[in-house]
Amino acid sequence: MSERLVIIGGDAAGMSAASQARRRRPAGELEIVAFERGRFTSYAACGIPYLLGGLVDDASDLVARSPEVFRDRFQIDARTGHEVLAIDLERRRVRVRERSAGRDFEEPFDQLVIATGAEPLRPPIPGIELEGIMGVQTLDDGLAVERVLVGNPKSAVVVGGGYIGLEMAEALVLRGLSVTLVEQAPQPMRTLDPDMGALVAEGLRDVGIDLRLEEPVEGFEGRGGRVEAVTTSNGTLPADLVILGLGTRPRSALAEEAGLPIGETGGILTDRRMRTPVEGVWAAGDCIETFHRVSQRPVAIALGTHANKQGRVAGINLGGEYATFPGVVGTAISKICDVEVARTGLNEREAAEAGFDFDTVRVDSSTRAHYYPGAEKMTTKLLAERGSGRLLGGQIVGLAGSAKRIDVLAACLWNQMTVDEMQGMDLSYAPPFSPVWDPVLITARKAAEKQEEG
Amino acid sequence: MSERLVIIGGDAAGMSAASQARRRRPAGELEIVAFERGRFTSYAACGIPYLLGGLVDDASDLVARSPEVFRDRFQIDARTGHEVLAIDLERRRVRVRERSAGRDFEEPFDQLVIATGAEPLRPPIPGIELEGIMGVQTLDDGLAVERVLVGNPKSAVVVGGGYIGLEMAEALVLRGLSVTLVEQAPQPMRTLDPDMGALVAEGLRDVGIDLRLEEPVEGFEGRGGRVEAVTTSNGTLPADLVILGLGTRPRSALAEEAGLPIGETGGILTDRRMRTPVEGVWAAGDCIETFHRVSQRPVAIALGTHANKQGRVAGINLGGEYATFPGVVGTAISKICDVEVARTGLNEREAAEAGFDFDTVRVDSSTRAHYYPGAEKMTTKLLAERGSGRLLGGQIVGLAGSAKRIDVLAACLWNQMTVDEMQGMDLSYAPPFSPVWDPVLITARKAAEKQEEG
Repeated sequence: MSERLVIIGGDAAGMSAASQARRRRPAGELEIVAFERGRFTSYAACGIPYLLGGLVDDASDLVARSPEVFRDRFQIDARTGHEVLAIDLERRRVRVRERSAGRDFEEPFDQLVIATGAEPLRPPIPGIELEGIMGVQTLDDGLAVERVLVGNPKSAVVVGGGYIGLEMAEALVLRGLSVTLVEQAPQPMRTLDPDMGALVAEGLRDVGIDLRLEEPVEGFEGRGGRVEAVTTSNGTLPADLVILGLGTRPRSALAEEAGLPIGETGGILTDRRMRTPVEGVWAAGDCIETFHRVSQRPVAIALGTHANKQGRVAGINLGGEYATFPGVVGTAISKICDVEVARTGLNEREAAEAGFDFDTVRVDSSTRAHYYPGAEKMTTKLLAERGSGRLLGGQIVGLAGSAKRIDVLAACLWNQMTVDEMQGMDLSYAPPFSPVWDPVLITARKAAEKQEEG
Repeated sequence: MSERLVIIGGDAAGMSAASQARRRRPAGELEIVAFERGRFTSYAACGIPYLLGGLVDDASDLVARSPEVFRDRFQIDARTGHEVLAIDLERRRVRVRERSAGRDFEEPFDQLVIATGAEPLRPPIPGIELEGIMGVQTLDDGLAVERVLVGNPKSAVVVGGGYIGLEMAEALVLRGLSVTLVEQAPQPMRTLDPDMGALVAEGLRDVGIDLRLEEPVEGFEGRGGRVEAVTTSNGTLPADLVILGLGTRPRSALAEEAGLPIGETGGILTDRRMRTPVEGVWAAGDCIETFHRVSQRPVAIALGTHANKQGRVAGINLGGEYATFPGVVGTAISKICDVEVARTGLNEREAAEAGFDFDTVRVDSSTRAHYYPGAEKMTTKLLAERGSGRLLGGQIVGLAGSAKRIDVLAACLWNQMTVDEMQGMDLSYAPPFSPVWDPVLITARKAAEKQEEG
């Protein structure tokens, strides 16, 4: 007898789950329907800043698989413009609104995957409802920003100096706008420690961004319903366009209203196989709570790579096989023009909150042998538990060729290595790729020496 | 009472040992004399091809510390142009030749570090003694090649398609010579598997190198004592200059003649603290035999980064503290013009020789999200033990931004990870740095799937 799988959310997590389930269960055995509020399925949300910056030609380049491809190649019925309004776990039905038709209907399910993603934070600042104050959470959002950009606005204010804020600031600089970045903290990129964040601040100013730190936004001013200025604790900034980059939270209200348990981070609770406590109901992606392997605490991290993996795990299990998501170590990477930034594990604040006593070391080195052309500055910071010497986290800020080296640190964290073990590792060396002592190894060595000194 | 430390060989291993010993024992307590045959101390031998290719301006850029710096800042008496001819372990003396003066003398030691490096292989091919047939083992060798290059030779033949051969071929192309690379094997870069070596061959031909495979050199022809042509199994190649890149072996004859034990690889035997069996006699760098953590077999690998680490370990122990060299996993990296190449662990031949039963996977991916500018092709290959799924080795060939990712695989090998564990790792993702599935993770995933299929 055929089962029916309903997917809520047609992006990374949801469609990975659908594809993996289909691979294991043919259409005659498992019917799959996916509902997506927006106009696009399976797209690279992380690519939106680069589309807006003009580095990517067309929105279609960001779409991995269209509804037509899902239908024709995978017999998956992916319906865009369909918003799920409610989940009835008792009757195993979802209520759906077809947005263009304005009509609501119910759809039954045997299996359900909740992949509703994250929602951008929109604090109740006076005037935040004005037109021209925009987020870039979805590809639809991104295309709305593009429609504003083609009108040649002169000035933009980006609110929030996290990953999205920085990437959007770069995009707007590339589009020729005068860009102000407003951050209420004393540094941009608060997932880094202040000393490393200061290096990012320098990079932002170098590309002409007016960076305003410790300057919370107090309101937005407009005329005719359209934003014209941002008011901060320090004055008024003209703004033809405002981008909100204040972070996200799991979009878990639908699950919560249905009675599914929500974790302390606001994300839907699942086990390692992505099962909720209700039989046949799964959740994956930015809407869930996952596990941080270093702090051993729950976290909610919105990132396409996790969403893809979690969706895949849900789909494999749905398909009758076995897979688990092993948690995260908090790895992230970005760049703002020439400055590359990466981090993994815990930063100082997070390590302290988790109760670790730790030492830190920070080392300036270079991406290549100092004599080799194109050797660029690279600063590496490590945190190690005092006593055990176990690596707790790492951060890198530098120019071309720096940041992706964070993956070595992520692999070390994954394996709970000590800095003493790390300094002996056999990392690759040749002058075009590294000084004879690789920056990661130098930093581990300094951290190990600090351990010995006690 | 003051002790006397004699160092044989003034490059990476020897001078690292000297510096670390000095840091722990002041000049009043430990006198340090280093004898170096050549004219330079502590230089980056790996940088020689880039000096000759014109990417590095001056030989002095490759010298980390001159004898003057060692004398003035570290009270280390580093004597260049001094060759050690013999070691008398009984009387604890070395016999030294001061090359410029042509005089021999004896020097006593309490502690001895043997850091004589590697010697290039020079098989007894007819004509190999002709002028213009050169190696690039030392900086003095490199400067000799430079003296030939300023005479504007037209054609060069590089014999041997390993790291040095490839890097020298690139250098000679950059200097405008017509370059032929002759290799007796069916592929260049024999530390890679044939399928990956084929990608390197393609890259070499793309930059205009006349690559001749399975074409052993049979002789060299000359006129007036100077090389003019190379004869292979397939004909005669004109050559104003011949570079030998046939590999190296540990320069261990001095130690062997003194009665120190030599391993099966030809390298001097030491323990993990770099001690030979004779009290107070240490060895480090390219002249020793070390341990491969994957094959669990002895290996001799000539590489500056190992030499530096081993010298450092010897110096720390000499200085009364404790350090060990933990062995290697066989990581190496290089580039030839635009093509980057890296490997770690065991290749197919090595894995078979070590007795492993294994599967391989090879995946074509890209260095960045496919839609992001500058996304370059990258091919990753993994070997995993059949049954256990344990990673045995990895190889990468690709364009800019590919090869340094080998370090993640080196870290996985170091920790004896399985490909199944690896596929869940939290590696960094953002479109300028990786597809949403990092190439390393995709390859691990495919390898894990192959395991499941049995």
